[in-house]
Amino acid sequence: MSELRVWAPDGLPEVVPGDDLVELVARALADPALPALADGDIVVVTSKIVSKAEGRVVPAADREDAITAETVRVVATREHPGGVTRIVENRLGLVMAAAGVDASNTPDGTVLLLPLDPDASARRLRAGLRERFGLALGVLLTDTAGRPWRHGQTDLAIGAAGVRVLDDLRGRLDTHGRALQVSQAAVADEIAGAAELVKGKATGRPVAVVRGLAEHVTDEDGPGARSLVRLGAEDMFEQGSAEAYAQGWKDAADGRGLPTTGATPA
Amino acid sequence: MSELRVWAPDGLPEVVPGDDLVELVARALADPALPALADGDIVVVTSKIVSKAEGRVVPAADREDAITAETVRVVATREHPGGVTRIVENRLGLVMAAAGVDASNTPDGTVLLLPLDPDASARRLRAGLRERFGLALGVLLTDTAGRPWRHGQTDLAIGAAGVRVLDDLRGRLDTHGRALQVSQAAVADEIAGAAELVKGKATGRPVAVVRGLAEHVTDEDGPGARSLVRLGAEDMFEQGSAEAYAQGWKDAADGRGLPTTGATPA
Repeated sequence: MSELRVWAPDGLPEVVPGDDLVELVARALADPALPALADGDIVVVTSKIVSKAEGRVVPAADREDAITAETVRVVATREHPGGVTRIVENRLGLVMAAAGVDASNTPDGTVLLLPLDPDASARRLRAGLRERFGLALGVLLTDTAGRPWRHGQTDLAIGAAGVRVLDDLRGRLDTHGRALQVSQAAVADEIAGAAELVKGKATGRPVAVVRGLAEHVTDEDGPGARSLVRLGAEDMFEQGSAEAYAQGWKDAADGRGLPTTGATPA
Repeated sequence: MSELRVWAPDGLPEVVPGDDLVELVARALADPALPALADGDIVVVTSKIVSKAEGRVVPAADREDAITAETVRVVATREHPGGVTRIVENRLGLVMAAAGVDASNTPDGTVLLLPLDPDASARRLRAGLRERFGLALGVLLTDTAGRPWRHGQTDLAIGAAGVRVLDDLRGRLDTHGRALQVSQAAVADEIAGAAELVKGKATGRPVAVVRGLAEHVTDEDGPGARSLVRLGAEDMFEQGSAEAYAQGWKDAADGRGLPTTGATPA
């Protein structure tokens, strides 16, 4: 038998700018009512409390400006009765509605930006927790995003330290001795989703511990969640269908030739 | 504290066409070395063993034909040194490379198709397990897929019975009393991913039990995993960028007007 356990402590206080995140998380995890932390545990933290501690709060009146500031590239837009949804690539390489700028779970009149560098935040939190507990832990920071072709949102890893975010199965053999077709499991995103099942959304449990995946916990901080981003030539969904169609139409109308490669022109 | 446990029994035998899946899964889960099943547990089964039991095996020489037969619509194609990857919408509404036709984990000379109706397969398995154990269980069938914009694959729910696949949070309030921005958690896909972390890929553990989510287990079989599919007008990534671009270019060259809506023409 192989086993995974995920638990989420109750009762973290509301996080405010300037809070010591290591102290808050360490205190919540040291609750004697919880299993004691152990080597190989992965601490999963909703990035919103990291943003709050880091003071990534701006006035809500600036929400559209904040989205624009966080945007590297607009991927798709869709008008709806309440306005326009912008699906964009943000400066972290994440493709998300509203660039990940969040208008819930913040004080009235404010919106919350993603951490400036979630991998760096994860490394700092890991170093602090390691110092407190003297254990080999991994840390993931998460956010929530929609997906093409599927209803509903799932949590993703947007910051990582000490976790092998991709489990590279290439070259491994299946039970029939043939190379596996599925080649890289996005372990960090699956862990983020598992933690979300326990943390929930509206219940004030922004931290979870995942036990049973010590094989994915590394000594080094590693390349972080940024290494999960796949954009550019490797990605086939650089633009929304309507946007790409319109671009092609305009280019033809302007007399430009159709590119012969599979790549979409910038 | 809120807690989730996931475990995967060892030692399911290789499944072959005609096997009684209820019997195989029930025997594996009744192993006295495992926690005894309880009301509210969710049994997660890799769809490959369902396909095998249902005889969804075809000769490997017909792989490209099999992909074509499973395809409703080509979403994107990409040439690479070994051939052409086809990302397609299959008859289940799943957008996947190779339509979900699997060339690993099957006997030499064969490939495996997805179950004909994974929701129906999940319902049958649930009914059979309920009869054996006399418990209120949920059942999910899973497969593995890549995602736009991210490296690596994650597991998704492709069949469901007795599980609330989407947790609709719309209208619920955050800790500040404001409506939540994230509105529907794709619980079934997050459960599929959590189970995959334990089942692994190449280790012969195609079944897992997830405990701690009884609030998502329903008396009724429910609408199934099919209800997670979002395609058509609601979806912004109906075609790959290069395909949509080329379509727009050709339509302009043919003298067609640019549509004024955001929708991509069929």
